[in-house]
Amino acid sequence: MTTVALDLLGGDGAPGVVADAAATLLSVGEHPDLRLVLVGPVDVARSQLVARGVDLGSITLLPAPAGVSMDAHPLEVVRADAQRDEAETTVVVAARAVRDGLADAWVSVGHTGASVAAAVLTLGRINGMQRPALAVVVPALARPVVLLDVGATTGASVAALVQFAIAGAAFARAVGVESPAVGLLTIGSESGKGDELRVEADAQLEIELGAAGLTYVGPVEGFDITRGSIAQVIVTDGFTGNVVLKSIEGAAAWSAHRIGQAYGDPGPARGVVRRAASGSFAGGLVLGVEGVTVVGHGAGTAAQVIGCVELAQRAVEQDLVGNVRAALALQP
Amino acid sequence: MTTVALDLLGGDGAPGVVADAAATLLSVGEHPDLRLVLVGPVDVARSQLVARGVDLGSITLLPAPAGVSMDAHPLEVVRADAQRDEAETTVVVAARAVRDGLADAWVSVGHTGASVAAAVLTLGRINGMQRPALAVVVPALARPVVLLDVGATTGASVAALVQFAIAGAAFARAVGVESPAVGLLTIGSESGKGDELRVEADAQLEIELGAAGLTYVGPVEGFDITRGSIAQVIVTDGFTGNVVLKSIEGAAAWSAHRIGQAYGDPGPARGVVRRAASGSFAGGLVLGVEGVTVVGHGAGTAAQVIGCVELAQRAVEQDLVGNVRAALALQP
Repeated sequence: MTTVALDLLGGDGAPGVVADAAATLLSVGEHPDLRLVLVGPVDVARSQLVARGVDLGSITLLPAPAGVSMDAHPLEVVRADAQRDEAETTVVVAARAVRDGLADAWVSVGHTGASVAAAVLTLGRINGMQRPALAVVVPALARPVVLLDVGATTGASVAALVQFAIAGAAFARAVGVESPAVGLLTIGSESGKGDELRVEADAQLEIELGAAGLTYVGPVEGFDITRGSIAQVIVTDGFTGNVVLKSIEGAAAWSAHRIGQAYGDPGPARGVVRRAASGSFAGGLVLGVEGVTVVGHGAGTAAQVIGCVELAQRAVEQDLVGNVRAALALQP
Repeated sequence: MTTVALDLLGGDGAPGVVADAAATLLSVGEHPDLRLVLVGPVDVARSQLVARGVDLGSITLLPAPAGVSMDAHPLEVVRADAQRDEAETTVVVAARAVRDGLADAWVSVGHTGASVAAAVLTLGRINGMQRPALAVVVPALARPVVLLDVGATTGASVAALVQFAIAGAAFARAVGVESPAVGLLTIGSESGKGDELRVEADAQLEIELGAAGLTYVGPVEGFDITRGSIAQVIVTDGFTGNVVLKSIEGAAAWSAHRIGQAYGDPGPARGVVRRAASGSFAGGLVLGVEGVTVVGHGAGTAAQVIGCVELAQRAVEQDLVGNVRAALALQP
């Protein structure tokens, strides 16, 4: 049985979209091994659930009076809240539920930076991971691809990229990608391509991933992310990864629109992109913190929230945190 | 009448694909204002053209014995060749044709870095442009978007990003985008998002573009590149731009494949992506050098080579170089 704490107040559609997701997760009987803890103002949670016909005995409500507003310096709000004995924000309360053993994982589709900060400040970093990374599973053509960092931080060192590779490989295995090969995202497929960071990282990845028993295929390019044939773990700094991820989402939306027009019926085209966005690609996993944390899109749908909860459940069932800890402990 | 010099030996499919493109450009009567100069070994050029039924009186052949091999340190080959009185590589000979007034523009679908180097070393930089930028026209949903730099160099300074914005706006106008708004590619839509370079560039763009009479809309995100609604000129460093451009191409290929499957007929889906790749998106324009230079994909088709030549012709007809020169001259 896996218990997932869910932020009722995260995202543009909160609390309704989150309550929709909770109701679906509890009702369809497809999640017999899942328990939900809904984190938010109890009166709001109760009325949202009752309105959807949810049996209040089937879900735990964890009080937290405040969401993290997008307007009010979210990171400062979270930092201040993480100092309090009685936390007030849903993200810190949800992360503490994991820290204190009330839940096995937590999920928010609210402000990404606020959720990452709540995870780091509350759960702490795994030994050997200098900084956390946000990792997504891209439904690429050949095999799924774990892309990281997509925006937990804005820069990266050579050492951080090596840690991303090791943690990312553990994540890839947890989502069913056997023997993932690791690639470094840059501007050409030959060694020596890219800026100083990539050139140095390429040499270091070659040395350290070999020693860690991982396959390193060297530099890969932007189109390899959605191909999945050469590498199934692709590492980059959080600035590049975030811009690239959103560019891919935009290109898929462009394609759905233009291709749908070409067939004279946009429905199936939209369906392909929507299904991709609500599957394992629905949210990012915060790798390198001591507890399973999934962060979804702020503008997410109920299907995306469900995808995030399922991703969190899978990460718990596969003992992702333990595997990342063990893989990093082997580092020299 | 516009004269375009075309590198016969550039790209994976050379010389056949380039000769196909030349034959089509000369035959269909759709390009009454275009003259072609084919740059390569004269015997190869002649036999390729004759095999396609091209009247050798309709095209000028400019001798150049050697292409730039992808294996043999292309940048060093070009640097050495640019020192010679009698250049040997097609890219340096083609660029010199522009420098010496034999052609108005030149096009290669070979090694991007080699072509950029040939352009800079032969034609020189425009005053006020610290480094060149490779700019592409993305066929975005609302309006086309000029994205730059997509890989002329691997880094960027604040001053370079400002120059990219000014040159990019001139390019946008040349391809018919009236009153383009400029955005800075970063990881969020609020000011202050991104790494140090973006935060500083955001402030400087705000000051300098206002003074230059351009509209600056501030930070934009990855999905804005294919939307085209907020900004029609999007500036970034060459590393990020190159990775993003290839990621977009990959995502479009992913979409064409998956969406085509959903309709049970891949033809129209592939056609949409192929048409996009052979239109104004077929090649990049090297902005900031004293002559129109278009660089296409190394793996290009004849349709893409044609798209590159048409882009070059348009840039000449709109006096793009003169406009970039004038816009940069207004800088303090």
